[in-house]
Amino acid sequence: MTTDFDATKAMFDLPEGVIYLDGNSLGPLPRGVADRVGRAITAEWGQMLITGWNKAGWMDMPARVGDRIARLIGAEPGHVVMGDTLSIKVYQALASALEMNPGRKVILSDTGNFPSDLYMADGLVRTLGQGYALRTVAPEDVLDAIDDTVAVTLITEVDYRTGRRHDMKAITARAHAMGALTVWDLAHSAGALDCDLSGAQADFAVGCTYKYLNSGPGGPAFIYVAPRHADRARPALSGWLGHAAPFAFDLDYRPGAGIERMRVGTPPILQLAALDAALDVWDHVAMADLRARSLALSDAFIAAVERACPDLTLTTPRDPAMRGSQASFRHPQGYAIMQSLIARGVIGDFRAPDILRFGFTPLFIGFDEVERAATILAEVMANRLWDRPEYHARAKVT
Amino acid sequence: MTTDFDATKAMFDLPEGVIYLDGNSLGPLPRGVADRVGRAITAEWGQMLITGWNKAGWMDMPARVGDRIARLIGAEPGHVVMGDTLSIKVYQALASALEMNPGRKVILSDTGNFPSDLYMADGLVRTLGQGYALRTVAPEDVLDAIDDTVAVTLITEVDYRTGRRHDMKAITARAHAMGALTVWDLAHSAGALDCDLSGAQADFAVGCTYKYLNSGPGGPAFIYVAPRHADRARPALSGWLGHAAPFAFDLDYRPGAGIERMRVGTPPILQLAALDAALDVWDHVAMADLRARSLALSDAFIAAVERACPDLTLTTPRDPAMRGSQASFRHPQGYAIMQSLIARGVIGDFRAPDILRFGFTPLFIGFDEVERAATILAEVMANRLWDRPEYHARAKVT
Repeated sequence: MTTDFDATKAMFDLPEGVIYLDGNSLGPLPRGVADRVGRAITAEWGQMLITGWNKAGWMDMPARVGDRIARLIGAEPGHVVMGDTLSIKVYQALASALEMNPGRKVILSDTGNFPSDLYMADGLVRTLGQGYALRTVAPEDVLDAIDDTVAVTLITEVDYRTGRRHDMKAITARAHAMGALTVWDLAHSAGALDCDLSGAQADFAVGCTYKYLNSGPGGPAFIYVAPRHADRARPALSGWLGHAAPFAFDLDYRPGAGIERMRVGTPPILQLAALDAALDVWDHVAMADLRARSLALSDAFIAAVERACPDLTLTTPRDPAMRGSQASFRHPQGYAIMQSLIARGVIGDFRAPDILRFGFTPLFIGFDEVERAATILAEVMANRLWDRPEYHARAKVT
Repeated sequence: MTTDFDATKAMFDLPEGVIYLDGNSLGPLPRGVADRVGRAITAEWGQMLITGWNKAGWMDMPARVGDRIARLIGAEPGHVVMGDTLSIKVYQALASALEMNPGRKVILSDTGNFPSDLYMADGLVRTLGQGYALRTVAPEDVLDAIDDTVAVTLITEVDYRTGRRHDMKAITARAHAMGALTVWDLAHSAGALDCDLSGAQADFAVGCTYKYLNSGPGGPAFIYVAPRHADRARPALSGWLGHAAPFAFDLDYRPGAGIERMRVGTPPILQLAALDAALDVWDHVAMADLRARSLALSDAFIAAVERACPDLTLTTPRDPAMRGSQASFRHPQGYAIMQSLIARGVIGDFRAPDILRFGFTPLFIGFDEVERAATILAEVMANRLWDRPEYHARAKVT
């Protein structure tokens, strides 16, 4: 398969006059979604009512849609399931991993991880008590920090601010050599690069779908458990839909087979329908093509910005192997600069304290947009267009 | 306000020829939902992209929609928030309650509770270890079983199978007298009866919205924390949107004010939009009217069925104060009988091992439908219409 990126771009509904470099925060609307969700509401829910759980296949959606994502992240078929939010899935994976590694009490993470991952880990170790602890080190120190006290690593493959990419294979190998398990957060990997969970021998992985997978605001998360663990990982969040026989209504919990046990409550069918439609775009995409184009787009942007904007400092690694699908620059007035850019139709985002973040999503962004965005950024910087009061007021959500 | 139930019925899209007595499993489609969700997709997500979190008010939806539900369950405004699934909210409430009652290790529940509540409690006590335990007694023994070893009770107000209603006020008072906290599951209460959390001095409450509140398959759950606890309950599921300043991206977790801390991850905006539209119906409903009509409808059905179907045994309490908004009958061939009814357009549901369950939802069910449903059930029973092979095959989901 050779990917036709003009064809994938035509599958999105993008507003006029906008260059959207924020698909790594919320992916844009794929054309098929509104119809698909509309059908789920009127033809399925409206007409089938309760029988939709069987007739419309709702009950099987978490596994069926999970399989569509499995291909994109290099997971074995039948080992990914959808549901809940990424934070919940982090908790679920960590709780299972800790129990599978009794005698060790340390979750190792890094200070570049997305804060919610750290918060969920913190909530779990406080709940567990008994000496359980979260240990965080600088991103570049992770490999060396994996020692024989670590029960499980919790690493987001691509840093949400800098775009720095961890070496999943090396970290996983080191963890296994030291007797630790791994939980990989793929928030900025799934749909962003050619992820290979199976090849890296990852133990657990979790991710969200509203970024590069374009499922819409609050789309469901996914969880992967390696086949070798899937039948022995005990779910701490042991909900009825992870039960071996949910509709037997037994009083005692018996975990379902494999990944099914990572289901918890009733799946969000409207959000799953949106995601299912959004995934149609991916049927036409080879992940190696995506990765190559993502790096080429990022390189083109970085080169143009560095030529024209000496005040912006690149914080994303230059080595392609060391980055995801974004380019980030630092500037003390990053917030105002981003506001000024957004006012000119270039939508990236700002991450405290000083990072301008631009996501490159080949499904709908091409070299034209990259060049225009860089030109507009150069104008903003050269003419200090950001230095106006209206761009300095802080929005609630940035 | 006097409720006009013809007007509320006109606000639903119901399939032709169906008498839907299963709104207690999945509520039917309110007319405003498809448009509202369509707007959230095309006008909000499609056009506003990432800025929808502010411009379309997405970020505030969990609290804003929670306030609309607060009125229906007798909660103080500002103390209900939406998100996740009911099972997750059970875990969250229990974990907080246990931590607020150190020195006690017992969660008390009953065998009539919905199994997922018991499973989640079991998952939590296993994760905690250290002697934490789930104790279950028969529903009628709950009050006496609350002793000074109980840290928290976990009771579903209305039994999902029998429709038996616990006395929330009495159980809560007894729990408090014995030094225990209470978690109330309102799955079959919210939108079904005139619930009064504040009056009963409940500590925590949780519930789902896809039953009597008609939010659609997989609609988000809610959680209530009493004002006196809201600022000191520690969230075990400490996600970023429960943080005091989510967009500061601090490495350390600091719980947000009050109920906000019970938020976890990114809220499911499409499902929340569906719920928000579904709640419009409730603007026209006085809960006392709803309760009176629910009981009158149930009474009419029970009387008609008992007259015509001597083989069916009522398992719902006759005392109105002791039941929710459903009527359940036992029969050894309950599954086949329900299949036969469904084939004739009367949709109730079956709950293992032998329960026929009928929900009475005054928003769209009137006395005509109740009478017709009872007549069809009488025909099925009198002529043993259920005794055909096609009705004896077990469906995967019943």
